[in-house]
Amino acid sequence: MKFLFELLSKLSVSGDESEISKFLLSNILERSKSWKVQPEIYFGEEFHDCLLLKFGIPKTAVFAHLDTIGFMTRYQNQLIAIGSPEVEQGMVLTGKDGMGDVICKIIGDDESYFHDFPRGIESGTRLSFAQNIRIDDNFIQAAYLDNRLGIYNALKLCETLENGWVVFTTYEEHGGGSMPFLLRFIQENAPIRQALISDITWITDGVEHHKGVVISIRDKFIPRKVFIDKVLRLAEKSRIPFQVEVEAYGGSDGREIQFSPYAIDWCFIGAAEDYVHSPNEKVSLRDLDSMIKMYQFLMKEL
Amino acid sequence: MKFLFELLSKLSVSGDESEISKFLLSNILERSKSWKVQPEIYFGEEFHDCLLLKFGIPKTAVFAHLDTIGFMTRYQNQLIAIGSPEVEQGMVLTGKDGMGDVICKIIGDDESYFHDFPRGIESGTRLSFAQNIRIDDNFIQAAYLDNRLGIYNALKLCETLENGWVVFTTYEEHGGGSMPFLLRFIQENAPIRQALISDITWITDGVEHHKGVVISIRDKFIPRKVFIDKVLRLAEKSRIPFQVEVEAYGGSDGREIQFSPYAIDWCFIGAAEDYVHSPNEKVSLRDLDSMIKMYQFLMKEL
Amino acid sequence: MKFLFELLSKLSVSGDESEISKFLLSNILERSKSWKVQPEIYFGEEFHDCLLLKFGIPKTAVFAHLDTIGFMTRYQNQLIAIGSPEVEQGMVLTGKDGMGDVICKIIGDDESYFHDFPRGIESGTRLSFAQNIRIDDNFIQAAYLDNRLGIYNALKLCETLENGWVVFTTYEEHGGGSMPFLLRFIQENAPIRQALISDITWITDGVEHHKGVVISIRDKFIPRKVFIDKVLRLAEKSRIPFQVEVEAYGGSDGREIQFSPYAIDWCFIGAAEDYVHSPNEKVSLRDLDSMIKMYQFLMKEL
Repeated sequence: MKFLFELLSKLSVSGDESEISKFLLSNILERSKSWKVQPEIYFGEEFHDCLLLKFGIPKTAVFAHLDTIGFMTRYQNQLIAIGSPEVEQGMVLTGKDGMGDVICKIIGDDESYFHDFPRGIESGTRLSFAQNIRIDDNFIQAAYLDNRLGIYNALKLCETLENGWVVFTTYEEHGGGSMPFLLRFIQENAPIRQALISDITWITDGVEHHKGVVISIRDKFIPRKVFIDKVLRLAEKSRIPFQVEVEAYGGSDGREIQFSPYAIDWCFIGAAEDYVHSPNEKVSLRDLDSMIKMYQFLMKEL
Repeated sequence: MKFLFELLSKLSVSGDESEISKFLLSNILERSKSWKVQPEIYFGEEFHDCLLLKFGIPKTAVFAHLDTIGFMTRYQNQLIAIGSPEVEQGMVLTGKDGMGDVICKIIGDDESYFHDFPRGIESGTRLSFAQNIRIDDNFIQAAYLDNRLGIYNALKLCETLENGWVVFTTYEEHGGGSMPFLLRFIQENAPIRQALISDITWITDGVEHHKGVVISIRDKFIPRKVFIDKVLRLAEKSRIPFQVEVEAYGGSDGREIQFSPYAIDWCFIGAAEDYVHSPNEKVSLRDLDSMIKMYQFLMKEL
Repeated sequence: MKFLFELLSKLSVSGDESEISKFLLSNILERSKSWKVQPEIYFGEEFHDCLLLKFGIPKTAVFAHLDTIGFMTRYQNQLIAIGSPEVEQGMVLTGKDGMGDVICKIIGDDESYFHDFPRGIESGTRLSFAQNIRIDDNFIQAAYLDNRLGIYNALKLCETLENGWVVFTTYEEHGGGSMPFLLRFIQENAPIRQALISDITWITDGVEHHKGVVISIRDKFIPRKVFIDKVLRLAEKSRIPFQVEVEAYGGSDGREIQFSPYAIDWCFIGAAEDYVHSPNEKVSLRDLDSMIKMYQFLMKEL
């Protein structure tokens, strides 16, 4: 949990993932000593701010995005969105520009909003929700559970994983852009036919807290039925709690697998959160636990 | 025609094309004995639910999509669209879930609609329009002429085709996703520079029944003028009836050729239908005949 | 300037870039004799209507699009947009169809508009704004400065360029489509990790005439921060006037680099114009001068 807290304290608005990526790398270098299998690690300018771990002989890859939604400053104290953050008067934002640390509040509404920082902020500065982590017996609540929990899940998986890719991606919240070159690298080095998206989804009229990890039958995009059926059969067999999701909207790194020049099946599997893309994202600890167990199970069985 | 009727009776909502694909394969294995040239057949998990036929030394590929629009069930008897079906109170839908066959009606309107099946239907079940084929001397009317007629046309072409790819794709109605890996396979095995999209378009203020197959100068996307000019010159020469289309909206498998990493020209050529994406799609038999003749002509001359 | 005037007089609405491409090629063949380094030239059907120049050993590529927005005729004297042109009653359009030259006016408004040419115009004919070039000491004003000035800038760069790709692209105004195959060709022949987009942007509340070339921190898409920071550091060092842009909308050839299967950083750098996509696009000559100098500087230093 200490590690999750550290992870939650990092800023990594889309396009600016270099710091979290380095943090993750140093963490992996240290932790991996106790992992069952030592992965090959791919990192560096050639991969922009992404990071790939190859365990054994992969059949399946797990993708977890490093970036978060956020804001960018522009002229006349205006803020524009990166990804699609919830916007409410009074929300506290933090960041840093060439003149130093920034902490300010949102003024205005969804249509047009501004910061109230006394001095101007340099144009192009990224701002994030001020972090505020709350945990009790049932829930964790914080900014950026999407996708810190997806990263956390992927790292827990690494502890026992024997075969598979674990890949940390960038830009997911703002249309994507790293998946295409990551997929090319994977397919040219140790190709796969299956992928799981380790990410956080939404509480809706059909998806509730404490009902288990969510296996998504579709969001805006539709994975291939034969693969989803296979995943669901295994999930049943696992006896780990899960629920299915059928949504008309939303997307994930799965979108870029769907449209890639490789025939790779994909499925989104993750815990659901309330208060999406706000400073108060809320996830059931039991659902997180199911998520971790489901990944460990599926990566063996798929 | 018996074969067309069989084809029209299959369900293959986007993402669930495995059955029609197998039906097509077995049909091709049998029919191909009488074809002028025996094609190489590519099929199987490596190609998901797609199917490729390579005749001789290809210069041009023909693409016909296997999938149809439809619906997916979700919580509380809600239906959500796959592709963009017409929705009208009372339309009859069919499908199958783990508990057996489903036949039900649509309740509600375009904004929010439901099924009226007495028992619940498992979340994530695909439903299709109930089929009702009507033929007279002038027209065929049925659900899913888009794109059963495109498939039918492609198979008629196979009878006499000497050189070319004939490719059956998936997912077209819901944003695509198979074209990128199919194009990569084609370009790495027997590359082409030209493609024709065997699909059904719309009756509009400029496109009428019985005026011949439609050659599309543009839809939402715009193929390269030099290629369209070449196709139109050949079409003139053929003396087969055709009409041109200029639309601002709509798309096809051509979209993914346009955005592929290969310099491949493409053109949409197909009969036009009325009552698009409804159970009552209606196509002129003369236009279908022009379509079949035009493909046979162009695949020799292009 | 004579060359710029010639360039401004050519028609090249998206999808119909074959003529301007040939004009450019013959111009390059002649001019290149006086260039510092002789580039390798890639041109012809294999590249559709695009053109690539390879100087020395490239680390960075410059992309300039050849196409312009415009209109296409269809049934009943209707016009539909190619790209997103400004539409105003009375604007003069020119073009050519099978029956000869066309010159006409726009009737109607943004919602639905028509041409007033006495005879019909063949469906599928492309029309462009009638050209009207105005120059004084401070400004150039004309149709299609976007992207004739980007092309002009790229050609000025060629005079002294030692290492780098200079690439002329098509389709940019209408969703793109040539970048993917150009990038593949580049990466398979003389790969790069950096790209600059030589294009024209917009005057906004934060971007003014005479304040220097614009370096864009984002438009609808967001380049990687570490690369933008590097460009900005160099721009500071250059002492050439520049301003930064932070926009929520708009796109460029950079979009297709972002989503390409290669880890290539990109940055949009170009002068800003007023009266975007109208016959009266207006650019400061000083900003154009900064653009030319900035490219020469950056292509040495990056």
